[in-house]
Amino acid sequence: MKAAFLAVGSELLGADRVETNSLRVSERLRRHGVALGRKVVVGDDEDEIAREVRDIVGRFDLLVISGGLGPTADDLTREGVARATGRSLARAENVVDEIRARFASFGRTMPEVNRRQADVIEGATVISNPRGSAPGQMLTVDQTTLVLVPGVPRELEGMLDDVLEPWLAERTGADVLETRVLKVACLAESDVEERIAPAWAELGRENLTILAKPGEITLQYHVRGADAEARDRRLAAGLARLRELIGPATFGEGEATLESVVGELLLARGQTIGTAESCTGGLVATRLTGVAGSSAWYMGSIVAYDYGLKVGGLGVEWATIERVGAVSEEVAREMAEGGRSRLGVDWCVGITGIAGPGGATPEKPVGLVHFAIAGPNGTSHRRAQFPGDRVRVRQQASQLALELVRRRLLRVGEAGT
Amino acid sequence: MKAAFLAVGSELLGADRVETNSLRVSERLRRHGVALGRKVVVGDDEDEIAREVRDIVGRFDLLVISGGLGPTADDLTREGVARATGRSLARAENVVDEIRARFASFGRTMPEVNRRQADVIEGATVISNPRGSAPGQMLTVDQTTLVLVPGVPRELEGMLDDVLEPWLAERTGADVLETRVLKVACLAESDVEERIAPAWAELGRENLTILAKPGEITLQYHVRGADAEARDRRLAAGLARLRELIGPATFGEGEATLESVVGELLLARGQTIGTAESCTGGLVATRLTGVAGSSAWYMGSIVAYDYGLKVGGLGVEWATIERVGAVSEEVAREMAEGGRSRLGVDWCVGITGIAGPGGATPEKPVGLVHFAIAGPNGTSHRRAQFPGDRVRVRQQASQLALELVRRRLLRVGEAGT
Repeated sequence: MKAAFLAVGSELLGADRVETNSLRVSERLRRHGVALGRKVVVGDDEDEIAREVRDIVGRFDLLVISGGLGPTADDLTREGVARATGRSLARAENVVDEIRARFASFGRTMPEVNRRQADVIEGATVISNPRGSAPGQMLTVDQTTLVLVPGVPRELEGMLDDVLEPWLAERTGADVLETRVLKVACLAESDVEERIAPAWAELGRENLTILAKPGEITLQYHVRGADAEARDRRLAAGLARLRELIGPATFGEGEATLESVVGELLLARGQTIGTAESCTGGLVATRLTGVAGSSAWYMGSIVAYDYGLKVGGLGVEWATIERVGAVSEEVAREMAEGGRSRLGVDWCVGITGIAGPGGATPEKPVGLVHFAIAGPNGTSHRRAQFPGDRVRVRQQASQLALELVRRRLLRVGEAGT
Repeated sequence: MKAAFLAVGSELLGADRVETNSLRVSERLRRHGVALGRKVVVGDDEDEIAREVRDIVGRFDLLVISGGLGPTADDLTREGVARATGRSLARAENVVDEIRARFASFGRTMPEVNRRQADVIEGATVISNPRGSAPGQMLTVDQTTLVLVPGVPRELEGMLDDVLEPWLAERTGADVLETRVLKVACLAESDVEERIAPAWAELGRENLTILAKPGEITLQYHVRGADAEARDRRLAAGLARLRELIGPATFGEGEATLESVVGELLLARGQTIGTAESCTGGLVATRLTGVAGSSAWYMGSIVAYDYGLKVGGLGVEWATIERVGAVSEEVAREMAEGGRSRLGVDWCVGITGIAGPGGATPEKPVGLVHFAIAGPNGTSHRRAQFPGDRVRVRQQASQLALELVRRRLLRVGEAGT
């Protein structure tokens, strides 16, 4: 099956807005084993819309068109498609009634302009829109099915679920591509690739997608089949195999984040955490408190940028700073231990480093960070050297800090291994 | 002038990656008063590349094509364009030498596959690439100029500067569209629109673009003209007028952020800041320490999620919490004042609120946040009720906190006015 996508909207051709609806369509297509062959953005221009539709009809099996279904004069998708396919447009009074009823349900009177949204292309089925005023339309011309949906993501997604998914299921057979996602902390992309290489033959290299960002790898495993139970079994077996190959750097599945996983582990143990941060400036605290319900296990943090606060707020010894400097194993340890006792928590992360661009010396370059984790069974230390600018150094440092805590909680070896 | 854009790369048709190079091209076009008429993404597929080029040639004045210029077998832009335009491809040995020299400069031997990158389309000018191995190409066919550039953003941007800008300048005349950006804190988009309405006639409504995100409005003002000095004068006059109309909610220009502006004000005054945060969980500290050089004016923070830490760490009275609850004006004030004295700073922000989804009561709904700013001239308070989920509430709260500090530093009225 060949599928194409067309987004209509002059605002999507400017310098300030990325087009994202095609990703939503792609994701549905992927589930049914279909790849998007082409995507196009045109302005609110009837000629350009019609031209693109003409190019696709007869050549692709599916064209999803988003946007241009609003009530105003520059919403021209209905007209463009009608022209390209040589079909007429007729106002459907039952659709006008539906739109009017929707306005009425909010206690509003339908503006006259909204009647335009009930102009239906000859031969098209109307897709009702419980989430907004713009109905969708679906028609087949010369073997090509056209699906017209609104550009508002929530409304578009609803119609993709309601109409596109069943259509795809019918056309592509009962086979569905299901995806499960594994999250990996603090390993390089090339490391993950090397580790999972032994599974390529059994799982199929084309079924594995690796997405990398600093300090985190997302691994997608796709399985295709008609039987939901069989798919689940294969997905479970595949994920177990990948976990085994990658090892303890695998921290979760799906939407899991390092901070949500750390939170779950603490909750299960009835333990609490706090942070004593310098170069990350509260970023680890921000991530932990971003988890809903974190007040059950996160107590507080001391951000000590200033030397005086490292001493007064966290109990670091002046003598230590004078002897080895604030960016050192010793100060990280004293920060973590001081923070643990002053915050009254079971676990405390101490972080001190050089985020840049200033503050570096020949011995202590930008990106050097010392971590200490103080816990019920003692204090551990880790030194790291991160590449990149201030934003990246801080991001990677917060990631490794959380990963170090997770490893301590699970007692499973060194982070990044 | 009519301009189109084509991105080549199968990875851009999947569900995980947005296409952004078109925005970079759009921004250059805008400078020269040209709007992008159409943008297309196709996979690494010679037929689809050729088809799109054929559709554009003779119909548009300019087609920028990004991607598909690498050395591997799936880099097919050169072949697709040659086929579509009926031109031959020939290997240019001088270009091979350039690519080889680039590898040599890194102490590497050029792999044989990279010779393909020196295949030049008949009649094309080679665009040299000091930032990578893929040279660009530029040719004119049937009134349409084709510019082939690499997909790597840094390399693409370099070539747009080196080649596209001069080409546009020549074609569009000496007129250049220049843009200046004004940033506005904690006003609604509709408020900003209303305030600047009196300037529409004088500045031209089409010259003003408003971009909104929670707690921040970015206002672009575009001026077109041949004379750089005249443009600068009009931009300066326009921005002054907009500042006057919008008032003190205008916090900066260009890349300014609220935190960078607060930092500059503190630096100029030789004053320091710290934060005492509950519901924002360190987000204000993270934003302040994200500014390079912040150690000159940011000292530290106490994040006190736990009641006990609000008391022990910040000196909030237990009796106050028992009497009015932790989310209250009184506790916000005690946090700010306690933080100011314990952190030893000139200014301290106290924030306590309900970020959700849990923790709400009928009297204290999700989104309720109390702010207090303790400073050399006393403590001020502000109550706010933000819409949205946990992420949005925290984002908006951090924004208002910084805006409240900025207003206190400047002594210019209430935030959000």
